[in-house]
Amino acid sequence: MFGQQSLRVVKIIIGNSALRNFAAFFSNAYPTASKVAVVLSGSGVYDGSEIHEASAMLVHLTRAGAQPLCYAPDVDQMHVVDHLKGSPAEGQTRNVLVESARIARGAVQPLSALSAAAADAVLFPGGFGAAKNLSDFAVSGAQFTVHPEVRRVLTEFHASKKPIGLACIAPVLAAKVIPGCTLTLGASGPEAGDKWPHAGAVDNVRPLGVNLELKRVNEVCVDANNRLVTTPAFMYDGQFHEIFDGIGLLVTELLKLVRK
Amino acid sequence: MFGQQSLRVVKIIIGNSALRNFAAFFSNAYPTASKVAVVLSGSGVYDGSEIHEASAMLVHLTRAGAQPLCYAPDVDQMHVVDHLKGSPAEGQTRNVLVESARIARGAVQPLSALSAAAADAVLFPGGFGAAKNLSDFAVSGAQFTVHPEVRRVLTEFHASKKPIGLACIAPVLAAKVIPGCTLTLGASGPEAGDKWPHAGAVDNVRPLGVNLELKRVNEVCVDANNRLVTTPAFMYDGQFHEIFDGIGLLVTELLKLVRK
Repeated sequence: MFGQQSLRVVKIIIGNSALRNFAAFFSNAYPTASKVAVVLSGSGVYDGSEIHEASAMLVHLTRAGAQPLCYAPDVDQMHVVDHLKGSPAEGQTRNVLVESARIARGAVQPLSALSAAAADAVLFPGGFGAAKNLSDFAVSGAQFTVHPEVRRVLTEFHASKKPIGLACIAPVLAAKVIPGCTLTLGASGPEAGDKWPHAGAVDNVRPLGVNLELKRVNEVCVDANNRLVTTPAFMYDGQFHEIFDGIGLLVTELLKLVRK
Repeated sequence: MFGQQSLRVVKIIIGNSALRNFAAFFSNAYPTASKVAVVLSGSGVYDGSEIHEASAMLVHLTRAGAQPLCYAPDVDQMHVVDHLKGSPAEGQTRNVLVESARIARGAVQPLSALSAAAADAVLFPGGFGAAKNLSDFAVSGAQFTVHPEVRRVLTEFHASKKPIGLACIAPVLAAKVIPGCTLTLGASGPEAGDKWPHAGAVDNVRPLGVNLELKRVNEVCVDANNRLVTTPAFMYDGQFHEIFDGIGLLVTELLKLVRK
């Protein structure tokens, strides 16, 4: 847009300090390195973050030129699930922050360090960790509570009008914290069929007074007023690339909101 | 290619049994659902499979219409690394098969169940698990040994001329088991620079008499004679999408060999 020659001319005319403001104006208008917080809840679909949803978020973020910053609460997991048997492993304790570091390749910070000032947007992958460690939705149903740090983060980003993206079961967190918002948990009811094994979750969210939109795995729900984007991901029993692409749409719509 | 009308005509002419052979001929000539074994070594870069490399393999496989089948050895991990601190967690034991189930969403079989007859090709993601659980390369260097089940699988697939793909540090397994093969571990030597933090691995592989090719993160090394494809992946300190795309090339070249 501006070659070295033009810049030199501008510098002669308006001086260094003005040039910095001039450059800052354009870099704000077209931010190329948005920071996006990714809130993890462990590592593994049955007791933590769904690994493929989290990985897809990181891939789509860096491809879009955004910088992912991973966070997780420094608390013990609700339990440890033996993912081979699909049942809880007795006598084991694992920490959500420590296990999340497996997805983040070590680069993860305690959720308490995340303020809305630290990032331009925030993303929550799904997996049962969102319903066991970030909230107790998995055991308490409609009466569930959201972890105080998660509630604070959602409230702060919402109040700062910074976009929030949630995949899979994670939208239940927004359903509780952002009254009257619009979101998707995928398909439900008789039309859902056996490709939507977790469709019952909808029954526990409907009493909260949110607007539930039916979306397929290759679609996102955008609540422009609340700057909230959601996608079903593994709420649908899909193939890995279908989930990857749905998360791609989520990241694209999230970054569009960052730039609006 | 063949509408219902044409099929009915063919059926009248040649009968049901011949029709089945006819259909089988075409499905073999253009296989649309190749089965590809993915051999995991745990879940987490420092003591298991590199999560993003493994996830990328599954995404690229299902997108290409291939069916991934996950396997892992039913053995204890060499150790458990606290991925937050980057150091071994004392007094913990985890099983490679059980932890691999986190990446496989429960759908993983013991490596002992994998024969070359079960799949059209085999893939190994990297992560230190390949150098700690599938071999002892991480601690023994050039004198390392390969886990007997891994050696058997590599030998069987190689002998059956079924393609083998390995990412990141996993090519060291082929270096030991397939004499004189050609592979990449990325860049090494003075030209590598600080973006190749594990370049020293090359020094421990060179004495094995393999041909080492310098490849970048967006390249693959194809050894057509041995039907072996390799890519550096996280041997390079790259961004998530760069690793994802490198794994994509690996899967593409692997499936080309399946169809040759």
